Order: sequence, then structure tokens, then C-alpha cells
Amino acid sequence: MRKGQKSKAKEVKVFASATIANLSCGFDILGLALENPGDIVTVRVVENPGVVIKKIIGDHNRLPSDPQKNTAGVAVIEYLNHLNLKEGVEIEIEKNLPLGSGMGSSGASAVAALWGINSLMGNKLTLREMLPFAMEAERVACGSAHADNVAPALFGGLVLIRSYDPLDIVKLPFPENIYVVLIHPHIEIKTEEARKILPEEILLKKAVAQWGNIGGFIAGVYTRDYDLIKRSMVDLIVEPVRGKLIPYFFEAKSIAEKNGAIGCGISGSGPSIFAFCPDQKTAASLSKILKSFYDEKSIGNEVYISKTNNKGPKIIREKIR
Amino acid sequence: MRKGQKSKAKEVKVFASATIANLSCGFDILGLALENPGDIVTVRVVENPGVVIKKIIGDHNRLPSDPQKNTAGVAVIEYLNHLNLKEGVEIEIEKNLPLGSGMGSSGASAVAALWGINSLMGNKLTLREMLPFAMEAERVACGSAHADNVAPALFGGLVLIRSYDPLDIVKLPFPENIYVVLIHPHIEIKTEEARKILPEEILLKKAVAQWGNIGGFIAGVYTRDYDLIKRSMVDLIVEPVRGKLIPYFFEAKSIAEKNGAIGCGISGSGPSIFAFCPDQKTAASLSKILKSFYDEKSIGNEVYISKTNNKGPKIIREKIR
Repeated sequence: MRKGQKSKAKEVKVFASATIANLSCGFDILGLALENPGDIVTVRVVENPGVVIKKIIGDHNRLPSDPQKNTAGVAVIEYLNHLNLKEGVEIEIEKNLPLGSGMGSSGASAVAALWGINSLMGNKLTLREMLPFAMEAERVACGSAHADNVAPALFGGLVLIRSYDPLDIVKLPFPENIYVVLIHPHIEIKTEEARKILPEEILLKKAVAQWGNIGGFIAGVYTRDYDLIKRSMVDLIVEPVRGKLIPYFFEAKSIAEKNGAIGCGISGSGPSIFAFCPDQKTAASLSKILKSFYDEKSIGNEVYISKTNNKGPKIIREKIR
Repeated sequence: MRKGQKSKAKEVKVFASATIANLSCGFDILGLALENPGDIVTVRVVENPGVVIKKIIGDHNRLPSDPQKNTAGVAVIEYLNHLNLKEGVEIEIEKNLPLGSGMGSSGASAVAALWGINSLMGNKLTLREMLPFAMEAERVACGSAHADNVAPALFGGLVLIRSYDPLDIVKLPFPENIYVVLIHPHIEIKTEEARKILPEEILLKKAVAQWGNIGGFIAGVYTRDYDLIKRSMVDLIVEPVRGKLIPYFFEAKSIAEKNGAIGCGISGSGPSIFAFCPDQKTAASLSKILKSFYDEKSIGNEVYISKTNNKGPKIIREKIR
């Protein structure tokens, strides 16, 4: 639908995917959208004014149904307020992404809801214009308005947050043949807590090493140089601290590296661990090995294999007014 | 000449260019080779063993003629030692680059000398293999074996030092239409001193901002997006400290930005200041404005305008055995 056209739909169901923030060397500035898994959010325009979270499935009663506290609710409220719209809106959330998993769960529902309301309102806003509302939702959920999950969920693909102030988003290419293995060990790490343990200051020489790696990673994605990407996926600053919060993280990483992964690291603030694989076969094999590893340690887990998604959210169904 | 072939030349005269290290956002990891100015070094194989600095022109008697202390001498000695060669070598240096200017002066003579000796020895080593000898020369001259001048001087173009340990050099593209204005105010800053005033630790949030800018700069050179390059050429860490060592630096930078420069910063450890311009006309005009500015402040200066050089050193003349 073109921007500005009034939608004939009164209800829309939208899928927004899991995302991997940081990608080892790009703490707070890089994020990547997966094809799956993801959250599904239904947004419906109704007669009664106000924004209501009508239903939440799959969250084990852990998500707030107060729209001011729920990321999907916050994003829609911010959107409507910005445009001074008085529409009544009902939201239903099918929560497939585990909470506190480091897979961009809070961001995915916010982005799906935003995509939905924007579609119903005739795509009044661009992605860039909507991004701050999704970031505001992140602030409510995690205490910081970070963009490294919501920006890739919204734009699709690999996204660089060049700057937060002013907000400057750069879409980067990503080799579409890379498969991502994501393992979620069943412990919960709150983003807020994972931020608190980071040092306020770091050694300049470590920062220099880190920006060399970021440079290498970005050169690597432009040139599809898997080996350069591999050499660059080194995090000297955040991973050594946060890795300790995740049981057997360093062993899992070493397993991934020995079994053909291009790179492996903490997804967002964890505890999920991601690995880039050069092909489906390597991904399939590695996912089994990692699953067995955590099974043997008696740590519950799920494993996902996914390609990346370069398009952002998708509309699953529309109902006409 | 192909690698390994024995050269018939007994003397070779080589030009190696000025380089701009750091490029604002890439402290210690980025460097760019210019077309001019540069140093010219003659390397000659002679009967008598040992490496001798035979003549130095244009240095106002400031460069050491002891080959163990002169960067061209050190580079050649390291090269010969590495290959266990006993050749006698005479070196003549035509020093066009001002010393302690931040234009990669020490590195240019080392690289020209290396290129020369390698050519005479039948190109036994690759650029990558020779790089450590040029870095060793930098250590002798400046106290640290940095590669952000010698790597671009040797490889040409824009170079990323992804890592120092292990040494990992990535050649990046650079928009060939960009003109560089370089102004050298006549004060001397020793690299060693300019390093000492840097903080050992920096705020993590500043480091994050810096690596966002590095990411943006590298994405910008791959996509030839001048506006992204411009937005990314921000240095929150080194420039605020070193800028104070250069008289009127911040004013000069502001002048450059107001007069069409894509970006402006300190060249290496200064005092030279570089500006990227989108075309020759802007560069010509800006160079005059900057020159007048420093003239009015009664600070002696030279101004250069150059395109970038993507090829590395060049042989000016060979004499056959």
C-alpha cells in the first residue's frame, strides 16, 4: 500500500522476527534480523477509543496486559499520540519468542504492532519515523531505549546504528547464504542486569582492538569474505564479562568454532548464543551438537536454525472493514 | 617483475607518498595514501657489505645518518636480516615530507627504501611480508610500531589494520574522486608525545559512539556515500585531546566544514590537518582559505592538494647492473 492511502483493512496480523544484537564485535551498534522464530501480533481498529491488550498467548502469564507497560501497547500508543490519532485499538499477541532470552523478544512484539497500526492507518510513517516508538517500548521493557533489536526487526537484515543522537540507521548487506544457529539455554538474563555489570570505562587499547574488529566485520559483509568476518568476530570488552553469566558459554563457543561456525557469540545480552554457519549442513550438524551439549549438562534449551530476513515484518492476514 | 626473479638493476629510485593516519574516527586502525607529496629514496647494491646512508637531502640535517636509527636504514637492515642476505647497500634519501608533521614522513622513507631493496632482490617478499620491517622502522622513529602510516604507504589506498596481533591488514575501497587538502602549520608534534597525552581509559559509551562512526565510515567508503562518510567522521576520543596541541585547530576544522569539506581532522598525530573535498574546485578554494587563515595568524604553513594513491610506491628510475 502507498504511504498516505487510507487502509480498507480493520484488522491486520503481523509477524516480526527474532533479532541478534551486538554480533560479538558490535556492542550496541549492530543487529541482525532472522527469518524465524518470531512474534505474531494482531492489531484491530475498534469503535471504543483507547489502546487495549485484548489477548496474550504463549507468555505463561508473564507479560503485562497494561498497554502502558507492554511493548506492543507502548509502541502503538506512541504512534497514535505522535500523529494525534484517536482511534481505538485492540492488540492480540502471540508470544513465540522466549522472554529475557536475548533474541529480541520485547522488540519483536513492539515492531509487529507498529507495523500493524501503520498499515491500518495507511502507512502514514516511514520505518525511520516509526523507529523511535519501538525504542520507547524497549525503554519501558528493559530500561534503555536501545535500537539494536528493534531497528533490524523493523528494517530487516543487518543494521548499523551509526549514532543514537541524532539517530542514524545504516542498512548493511549480509551474505544471504549464511545460516544462523541460535541456542537458548533456559536461564533468564534481564537486559537491565546484563547492562549493570559492564564496566563504565575500558582501556583505550582494547577499544582500538574492538574498532579494528568492527571495521573488519563491516568490510567482511560488504565483500562476503567469510574468513574476514570470522577473524573480526572478536569481542574483548562485553563477552568476557557477560559470558560468565551464561552456563558453559565459553565451552559452547569453542564447540561452535570447532564445528565449522564462522563466528559465535552472545545474542544480545544473552543467555542465547548464536553461531553463523556457512551452509545449512553445518548449521544442522552444529545445532544437534550444541543441543546435546546442553542436554548433557541438564540445562533445558531450544535450538533454532534460520536464514536471515532482509525484509522486516510481514503481514500474515488482513481483514477488510 | 615477478616474485623471485633476480633483478638486473643495481640501483633503483623509489617514490613513496605521504599518508594520513586515523582519519578522525579510526584512531590507530585506518590510514590513507596520497598521490603527493612524498619521499624519494635511492637504493643501490654495492660491493662493500653493510648498509650505509650515503646522502640525505632536504632534512635540514635533522635525520640520523646512522642506518640503525634512520627509518630507511632500519627497514633495509630488517629486510636483509630476515632473508639472511649479505648484500652491501647504499641509501640516498630525498626528504620532501616535513618531519614530525603527521604526514607519515618517517614511514614514507622506510617504505620507499623497502620497496627499493625488494625490487633489487627480485621481489622476494610480498607487501604483507615486508610490512613488519616498515613497522620496526616506525618503532625506532616514534617509539611505537604502528602500521597506520606504513601500511597505506606500502599497499596504497585506504587500509584498515584489523588487528595488530596477529597483524591483519584489510584494503578498503576509497572514492577516487575525493580530493584531499592537507595543511601543515609549522609547529612540530612528536608522535611519541602525542601518544603520551591520550587517556589510558575511556568511557564505554564514548567507545560505542566511536565504533558506530567507524562502522559508518567503512559502510560509506563501500557505498561511496559522501554524506555518510561526513556524518561518520567524528572523533570523540583523540581529537578533543590532541586538537588542543595544534594552534587554531578547531577553528580550521570549522572553516573546512563551512567551505564544503566532507570531513576534516588531525592527520596522524598532527599538527597537519586534512580535509576531504568532493571535487577539485572545493579543494582549491578551501586550500586558499585555510592558508590565508594560518597566514593571518602568522603561523608558517604549507598547503597541499592531492588525490589519493591506490597503488603504493612507484619506481622512478632503475639503473641496470
